[in-house]
Amino acid sequence: MIPPIENLLSALVKLPGIGRRSAERVVFYLLAKPAAAAALQQALAELSRVKRCQRCGNFAVETLCSICEDAGRDQTTICVVAHPWEIPLLEKTGAYQGLYHVLGGLISPARKVGPEDLGLERLVERVRTEGTQEVILALESKAEGDLTAMYILRQLKPLGVRVSQIAQGVPVGRDLESADELTLGRALKGRTTL
Amino acid sequence: MIPPIENLLSALVKLPGIGRRSAERVVFYLLAKPAAAAALQQALAELSRVKRCQRCGNFAVETLCSICEDAGRDQTTICVVAHPWEIPLLEKTGAYQGLYHVLGGLISPARKVGPEDLGLERLVERVRTEGTQEVILALESKAEGDLTAMYILRQLKPLGVRVSQIAQGVPVGRDLESADELTLGRALKGRTTL
Repeated sequence: MIPPIENLLSALVKLPGIGRRSAERVVFYLLAKPAAAAALQQALAELSRVKRCQRCGNFAVETLCSICEDAGRDQTTICVVAHPWEIPLLEKTGAYQGLYHVLGGLISPARKVGPEDLGLERLVERVRTEGTQEVILALESKAEGDLTAMYILRQLKPLGVRVSQIAQGVPVGRDLESADELTLGRALKGRTTL
Repeated sequence: MIPPIENLLSALVKLPGIGRRSAERVVFYLLAKPAAAAALQQALAELSRVKRCQRCGNFAVETLCSICEDAGRDQTTICVVAHPWEIPLLEKTGAYQGLYHVLGGLISPARKVGPEDLGLERLVERVRTEGTQEVILALESKAEGDLTAMYILRQLKPLGVRVSQIAQGVPVGRDLESADELTLGRALKGRTTL
């Protein structure tokens, strides 16, 4: 293959879920449709506009994300997730009207991720200052999720806030993303106080 | 989703073989790795450098493709393919040392593609002027491929050139791309004179 094609193939196969054959199909499609290549290029350039919400850690284009800026949301509830891309999954259920807090990962002794790497003190600070009445933990039901949940519970219990976790409707041993909207909605409704 | 993320998702789901879930995985990967996004953006920009070889229609960065520029190749044999991305598949077999000719499609009454749309007169002209002794048709073994092969045969027979087609090692009713290297190599070796 000539360099411009080979370079694009190399960049594409590094992406998750894209093998050599898929990358080739994409490249030949883009060669046939220069407008699609230009649109993709433009969209990639715009990606640098994505920042993190300074309050909750969600993706944002401004200082605060659209959820934190929405005064109509329940300001007394915070749902804790590991990653910002899990927020749209929970939003789609329509079962939650409160705020979020993004940890950016989970506590993992194996991968040397401790509480200090997740900025958990920011969550504690929010609960202390924002009049939070309930913190819902929407973490995966695997070892790291449970470990993180236990740690957060220990930090927040002394503050007198209700700490709950979403029901085990989330398939055990799988990522949060593998649950459909209905399952996630039920998991939210069936949350249990810890 | 915020606009920069949604725009990139929209551009990605238009690509062949990429659904919404795959697109989301790619976007969150790129958000986590800005260098990968920059590399992809750069590679897309470079795609405009890809031209078509003025002799055979293969992808090229110069006026002629690397195969047409290689004086060591057998200049008396032309292998006819429908699309430029089929050339690397045939090259990988190592079973062919001649030249190529890219039609850019196949004759299709249903999709209103006629011989004039494929520039078949350019192939006839090449055979007439380049001292070609054999034209190998490497077209898919479906209706449109057969129709195109028959048309080319009628055009070239009067010129006294040998016209052959690759053996039916190519799976019947499938794209050329679905054949592995071994099958394509055998198909080339087992070609039959028409």
